[in-house]
Amino acid sequence: MTFFRSRWVDAPAHVRELDTATLPKGFRAGAAAAGLRPGATRNDVGVLVSDEPATVSAARFTSNARVGAPVIVSRASDLGHLRAIVANAVCSNVGDGQRGIDTAEATQRAAAELLGVEPAQVGLASTGVIGTELPREPLLAGVAGAVAALGADARVFSEAILTSDAGPKRASLAVELESGRSITLSAQVKGAGMIAPRHATMFCFVQTDAAMEQETLDLLTGVCVKRSFDRVSVDGQLSTSDTVFALANGASGVRIEPEGVDELRFGEALDALMRQLALDMVADGEGAHRVGRIVVRGWPDAVEPIARSIANSPLVKTALHGADPNFGRVLQAAGQAWPPGQPFVADLDIEGRRLVSAGHAIGFALDDLKQLEEAVSGSEVEYELTIPGEGGETEVFFSDLSKEYVAYNSEYTS
Amino acid sequence: MTFFRSRWVDAPAHVRELDTATLPKGFRAGAAAAGLRPGATRNDVGVLVSDEPATVSAARFTSNARVGAPVIVSRASDLGHLRAIVANAVCSNVGDGQRGIDTAEATQRAAAELLGVEPAQVGLASTGVIGTELPREPLLAGVAGAVAALGADARVFSEAILTSDAGPKRASLAVELESGRSITLSAQVKGAGMIAPRHATMFCFVQTDAAMEQETLDLLTGVCVKRSFDRVSVDGQLSTSDTVFALANGASGVRIEPEGVDELRFGEALDALMRQLALDMVADGEGAHRVGRIVVRGWPDAVEPIARSIANSPLVKTALHGADPNFGRVLQAAGQAWPPGQPFVADLDIEGRRLVSAGHAIGFALDDLKQLEEAVSGSEVEYELTIPGEGGETEVFFSDLSKEYVAYNSEYTS
Repeated sequence: MTFFRSRWVDAPAHVRELDTATLPKGFRAGAAAAGLRPGATRNDVGVLVSDEPATVSAARFTSNARVGAPVIVSRASDLGHLRAIVANAVCSNVGDGQRGIDTAEATQRAAAELLGVEPAQVGLASTGVIGTELPREPLLAGVAGAVAALGADARVFSEAILTSDAGPKRASLAVELESGRSITLSAQVKGAGMIAPRHATMFCFVQTDAAMEQETLDLLTGVCVKRSFDRVSVDGQLSTSDTVFALANGASGVRIEPEGVDELRFGEALDALMRQLALDMVADGEGAHRVGRIVVRGWPDAVEPIARSIANSPLVKTALHGADPNFGRVLQAAGQAWPPGQPFVADLDIEGRRLVSAGHAIGFALDDLKQLEEAVSGSEVEYELTIPGEGGETEVFFSDLSKEYVAYNSEYTS
Repeated sequence: MTFFRSRWVDAPAHVRELDTATLPKGFRAGAAAAGLRPGATRNDVGVLVSDEPATVSAARFTSNARVGAPVIVSRASDLGHLRAIVANAVCSNVGDGQRGIDTAEATQRAAAELLGVEPAQVGLASTGVIGTELPREPLLAGVAGAVAALGADARVFSEAILTSDAGPKRASLAVELESGRSITLSAQVKGAGMIAPRHATMFCFVQTDAAMEQETLDLLTGVCVKRSFDRVSVDGQLSTSDTVFALANGASGVRIEPEGVDELRFGEALDALMRQLALDMVADGEGAHRVGRIVVRGWPDAVEPIARSIANSPLVKTALHGADPNFGRVLQAAGQAWPPGQPFVADLDIEGRRLVSAGHAIGFALDDLKQLEEAVSGSEVEYELTIPGEGGETEVFFSDLSKEYVAYNSEYTS
């Protein structure tokens, strides 16, 4: 297994990795250089299309109140029956008023005409600088170029959508169903953060040639997004443009029935795919060197804010960066989000070792400390916090905070 | 004026700066080297005492649920009638269970006996590493040494309480009252962050020789803390040990009556003192180069979370560091904390220039942009965000995020 690297993702036994650029049957992708960044010649526009009229789709978007034109226009489209996706880098088309909306709608119309679908069947996703104009004519020329370059390979598409990412993030899986027949499931992701509005918006585009009800795809997409992209943080900053599009076109001739074993098998594969891609995003977070996982168990209403407080704490993140098993900072961040009036009682384990019991530090022999320091110097570090109460449990994956993050975000100017 | 440096603090006309180490009449301070950090010889224990039996006091503490033994023991003391403060650096005495509580109580008893006051009249404040033992015998020896060194000068006391601070932060003011008579008002602060639990807890100790009701001092302290230390952020991290102690001993023979002109004059001086000291704390934030001020006006319930979201955003803070007038990041952070379901409509000014109107970027000539870049490269940068709604207004002062912050917090190991 080369894709399912993380110990926090269970690769289902019925899933086999394919070449990462493999697209499911009936999908094509392409890219072109629209020159959206003046002087640059790299591909910056990507188009993905399903050739099957019966394609169903699902979508999820950022919950930020300040959204861009592509999110506004996509939300108003036929999200259950998308046939194509147009994505661009360099400019996010956020905050440009009616002109930005007009450009997004013009993009839908142009792609629809070239591909023979309805404008409302084209999902849009733009990432890059906020508050500048997305130049319409170059973009439309780029869309035409990408359509002309469509082929059965996700490579150029997955590269065209990148911004601050270290490299493309994509995967393709063969999922064996109960009958012994297989379907293909692939995805391309961009995002080096959860999120920087100018250059690290998160996109995930999922394709499968399985046939299924739109409701099935929507349900599975929703559940899997909640367990993957909704659970990561590079810098705690919610983007204006986060977008997940999932398309199922049935080209394999294999149908996944609702509430059957195959829905479960497909769901497990989609879940593992999205979790590993989400972890890849964190590991590729701006300046990131390590990924932490905080698990909090206890009061149902308190586990989420406490886990977020820990995952987003710059002190916890710098300690993770320094490979310092600094439990004091975890307690401080937990205490900051504690339910008002409740006494602070908590157990904390780092990499399976109990460091804090009932809120108080456990004395630690020097040999044990050396072992622990060794354990937190790897690429993944696990923190488990048990607070009072029953029934709540959550997890958040987060990157460390490094000098490179600061350099990238302070030296990058408009 | 050398102390009231910030344009965001109005130095009252009836206030005159004294030598920063001046203590009001009837106060003495001292320090000693207890060797709390093995091998170190710097002063690490400070004692401050009011010699007037009629002294009244007020106190405020962190709202973190995970508090240290000094906060627990101080809260249970006679906070309206404190006579002395014992503060130490190096170890915060947090998370050490009953042993930590016992050490804090032993410190109260020892100081009380040496100073001829009740144990419940001794306020405690410890800062430094969390989760390690505060060594009792060296600390008590340090208290005895500091008491033996007591004198009418705040210098050594203000230095003994520092940790990651670049230098001591203290001020002393002559406040002229309506009658023409003056009282003295002084304070010593530590804190290079709003807060790091291991080494940057915030303390503020205030003294005055004015006479006043305990209720007056408590009221004024509460109001001024809300307008100063409650409104700053270095890293959004709430300490386990933040403590403000204010003592008024009446040794000047000048009485400040409740609800009179002099209460106002004293309150204005205390307000300006605490605001400037809070700003000094932000400017001395770990790795800080610049101080930002975000003002948000509009919906009363929304201004606070939106201002905090902006002040704590690592993207806004790195842009401040890079002197980049990056309004997109301010909008993103505001949108993240926006009231659910409300459309995003906002005006944004940076350094008095309108950049965003009704949520959309205003086109900007290159000359104007150059002027703006010049304006945001100073030591203080002002952001004003106007959102829909009437009646709410708040401000938060925050530092930039630099590589030095990351280095300090990732390379500092237990």
